[in-house]
This record gives sequence, structure tokens and C-alpha cells, in this order.
Amino acid sequence: MPTATNSRYLLAADIGGTWTRAACYPWPWKGEAPPRPLARVRRPTDPEDPTSGLVAALREVWPREGRVHGVGVAAPGPLDPYRGVVLFAPNLPAWREEPLQARLEAALGVPVRIGNDANLAALGEARYGAGRGREHVLYLTLGTGVGGGVVCHGRLLEGRQGLAGELGHITVDPQGPPCACGGRGHLEALASGTALVRAAQEALPTHPDTLLHRVRPLTAEAIARAARQGDALARDLLARAGRWVGVALADLCHIFNPEVVVLGGGVSRGGPWLWDALREALDACLMRPEYRPQVRPAALGDDAGLLGAYALWG
Amino acid sequence: MPTATNSRYLLAADIGGTWTRAACYPWPWKGEAPPRPLARVRRPTDPEDPTSGLVAALREVWPREGRVHGVGVAAPGPLDPYRGVVLFAPNLPAWREEPLQARLEAALGVPVRIGNDANLAALGEARYGAGRGREHVLYLTLGTGVGGGVVCHGRLLEGRQGLAGELGHITVDPQGPPCACGGRGHLEALASGTALVRAAQEALPTHPDTLLHRVRPLTAEAIARAARQGDALARDLLARAGRWVGVALADLCHIFNPEVVVLGGGVSRGGPWLWDALREALDACLMRPEYRPQVRPAALGDDAGLLGAYALWG
Repeated sequence: MPTATNSRYLLAADIGGTWTRAACYPWPWKGEAPPRPLARVRRPTDPEDPTSGLVAALREVWPREGRVHGVGVAAPGPLDPYRGVVLFAPNLPAWREEPLQARLEAALGVPVRIGNDANLAALGEARYGAGRGREHVLYLTLGTGVGGGVVCHGRLLEGRQGLAGELGHITVDPQGPPCACGGRGHLEALASGTALVRAAQEALPTHPDTLLHRVRPLTAEAIARAARQGDALARDLLARAGRWVGVALADLCHIFNPEVVVLGGGVSRGGPWLWDALREALDACLMRPEYRPQVRPAALGDDAGLLGAYALWG
Repeated sequence: MPTATNSRYLLAADIGGTWTRAACYPWPWKGEAPPRPLARVRRPTDPEDPTSGLVAALREVWPREGRVHGVGVAAPGPLDPYRGVVLFAPNLPAWREEPLQARLEAALGVPVRIGNDANLAALGEARYGAGRGREHVLYLTLGTGVGGGVVCHGRLLEGRQGLAGELGHITVDPQGPPCACGGRGHLEALASGTALVRAAQEALPTHPDTLLHRVRPLTAEAIARAARQGDALARDLLARAGRWVGVALADLCHIFNPEVVVLGGGVSRGGPWLWDALREALDACLMRPEYRPQVRPAALGDDAGLLGAYALWG
């Protein structure tokens, strides 16, 4: 809880289906290194009333003195950052057309900006993380689902209603498996943690020797661990996911011509089996070598969304 | 050839494999309606020395009095708009790392800006054509190849080296036909004029009754004409191309969340067979109805590139 009287602060929060995080940062902030939080908390998200839980977390890090310039919030679900409304959030069913910005401004008395969590993680990584100093950064997070965001000419791509950057929902294989969104063969259906685990489960009966038979629960992390222990099926599954990511990234490079591609999320920790296959497929699918980006692991970990919410303020 | 002494002008040019166009426009220009050219010419492109032919065309429309503020040029091929260099142009083999901007500035004595022709057609349609007044516009031209461009937050998407917007080279069907670029199943390999004609040729032996047996040369335009005359194969071919465009547009809507999608090029004149299939596939593939854009035919015809080159200046 910072206390300097003349200081100014910016508060940031990141609310997900499991955790609500909030932090107090100095404001303004110069330079490319991320600002250091003066206070931070992590609280379980209240599924009944996520907005009140978010207000409480922000109040916990509120400075005792000085002035709060504003609040930035990373939130899940398709949301309209211009109107400040979360349309809905699969992990937070209590939110339906939630006027999050207006409710937070009423509760806190300072201006609030909100953004999609994956988009803001992209902005955070572009500004302060693996893409810092670059104008054209593409971010992909391979987690339970696949999310993403794009920074072009230094600016977060938002689109007409702020729904842009759904990079997990591009069709990579029209004959591929169904996607949670109702589509088919989307990148998310081929390279998310969920997809990886499903592919493993389907492969178990025909692979009697794999270590994965003994793993409970079967997760993306467990598959990566088995790969490190030499398991052939685990390595093959990670390579397959990596190839699909490479194919999708080639499309995205032709579309965006980014300088840096940042990969985050649990599946991105799939080791060389994933990364080598990804780079090989990407190189094979690019039209011209000029398109080849630097592909880097995310650098900010769980702070990407918070720092992106901070970066919403300039 | 305009003559008012105190007037200012902006010259624009559009050079392709066949034609070199140039026009003189008033400058500056307010309002959303396109500026009216005070002079314009169209000359065959000189394949031996396209740059000199371009200089000559610009000199033909040069005003006798008044001041030329600058020149904007739409040129083919992957090009670097920041350095002003055409890397190469498949239709103009004489150009290899052509320093077009520097050569034009040396010849004409005024500042020059250059841009990729499909990107500038996108900018032209967004500023003055079917997307005018909108901030988020996606443009796709279905011609001999498939090109495109994207305007986000009112600004042309260019990418690190200016190579962004290659919307024809996204993979729509990994098992699809080879693409001219060396890839496979790209949108260009499925929905360009070239792809349409190839699909028609492959279908001829199994369709003894189609009107297309009697058509020479077999072109996208001829296929559209046969469709209007009731030919079932022609209608089916156009619908197939339209479906692939719809599938690709759904991806692009998830990525960009555009307000308007503008379709140009010969294949886009494929009538309701193409457009209905396109809209149906697009609707079926969108994750949520909020993503649905307005899909409109291009409005500027052959002037899109010239007006985009004009719009490069603000």
C-alpha cells in the first residue's frame, strides 16, 4: 500500500475464471522495462458476483495517499472495449452484457478502461515483454483454449466492436476436429491444451507402452513432462500441435508481416518437440523468407494481462 | 493539363503488368467523395523499362502551372513502402530490388511515396469507395490472383517490411490444389480467376452438356456469362469459389472484426451464384453473429489503386 502524497498511480486488474489479480503501479512510467507494482493481490474469483470481487481486489491495492489516475482491467469473453461491456464470458456465466466499465467507475470513482484478456496480454508482451521495442507483434496463447492479439504499428488491433484478434478461431483444417465454438478445424481445436489432451486420450488404446497411461490427470503439462522423459507418443503429440501452429502462423505472417511472434500458455512449454516442428512448418509454409518472424516464448508469465491493462493507458 | 497558377496538385499512378495509369488531382481534398482528376492517361506498360514509362506517364499529366505537392504510386509485387523499393514483380521481370521511389524522385524533383497495388486499392476503397466513412475495412480482389489489404482504425496495415495484407495466401484447405506461390490450398489456389478456369477445365470431360465447351478463351468472365445463361456447371463452379471465399472471410472476420468487406476483381462479378454461396458459408463459419460484416462489391473499379496512391498522402 503505497503512501507518497504527491504520487500518481495506475491500478490494473486481470480477472479470469479462477483468479482475480490486482496491482498498483506508479504512473506515468517511462522506458521499456515493465513498471514494478507497489502492491499486488491475487484472490479467487467470485463466480456469483465477479464484479464485486474485482472491486474488492482493487480496493485492497488502492494507495492510501496520492492520486489514482485510472484503472485498466483485463477481462475474459468477447467484450466491447469501446462501450466497456462484457458480452458474455464462458468461464463466468454470471456475466451477460455486463457493463463492467460503468459499474467499476461507479464503485471506484476513477476512470476505467477494459479490454479482452488475450488482447491485453498481447499488448503487455508487445510493450514490456518478449516484443518490447517492436511495432509489429503477434501474440498467441496456447492454453485451455487458444487466444491471441495483434499489435500493428504499435497499436492494439481491436476491430469494429473490439472483437478482433480471435486467432484461435481461424480454420486450419476444414476436415479437422470440432471446436468448442461450434466451428471445425480451428487452431484451438488442434493446438490447445484441451485438443492435446483429447488427442492423447484417443491415442492411448493403440499405444500400450506410453507413459501417459500412468498419468492422472492427463494435462498438457503432463504430456510435456512425459516428452522430456523420452515418451514417443508425447513427443509426437507435441510435434503435431506444433505443426498446426506453424501452419497457422504462416497465414498470420502473410496477413500481418510481424517482426516478433510471441507464444504463451501451457502448450508453449512443450519443449523442442513442439518448437522444432512449429518452426519447420512455419518455414515450409512461408511464401518468401522475408516473412519469417522471430518466434519467442512469452516473457511476462501471469503478469501479461495486468501489464497490458496498464498499457491501455498509453 | 490544369493551369491555375496558385493551385496545388497531387499526382497518382498505378502501374501493372499491362497498363500504366497516371492522373493529376487537386490537393488537398476534403470530404469523402473521391477527388476528380484534372487530367489522366493510360499507357501500355513498357516491360523493358517500366520506371521510365511511368515517369513519362506522370509527365503527361503534370500541370503546366501551380505546384505538385507529391506523387503516390501503386506498384505490383512484394515491395517495401518504407524504403520505397520493389523487391520483385512477377509481371515485370525487369524490376529486381528496384529503388522506385528514389528513381522517381530523381526524375521528377518532388517527393514520392509508393505502395503495394492491392494494399492501395484497399486504402482507396476504404477512403473513397465501398468502405468510405468506415474505420475497419477489409478488401479482397479476386482477379488472376487474389490480393487484398486491410484498413484498421483508419490506417492501412503494412507490417514490418510493408509486406502485410497478402490475404490470397492464407491456407483454406491444406489438402487443396497447389498455389502459384509454391504453397498449397491457399485462397488464391481456390478462388482466383486462374483457379476458376482450371477447375472448369478439369470438369469439362465429365460435363458433356456445359456451354463452357464452346467458350474460347475460357475466362472467369466467360464462366460468369455462362452462369447467367443457365449453365449448371458454371453456376456450380462459381458457388464453390464463393464458398471458399466465405470460409476465408470468416477467419478474417475473427482476426480483424471489420465493419465492411469489399470484394473486387473479375471473379467478384460472378453474380448471385458466387455471392449467395459466399454469404452462406460466411454466416455458417462465424463464431458469433456480432462478427458479421457488410459484404459489398468494390465501387471504384480501375481507379481504386490511383485513389489509394492519392490517399497515401493523408
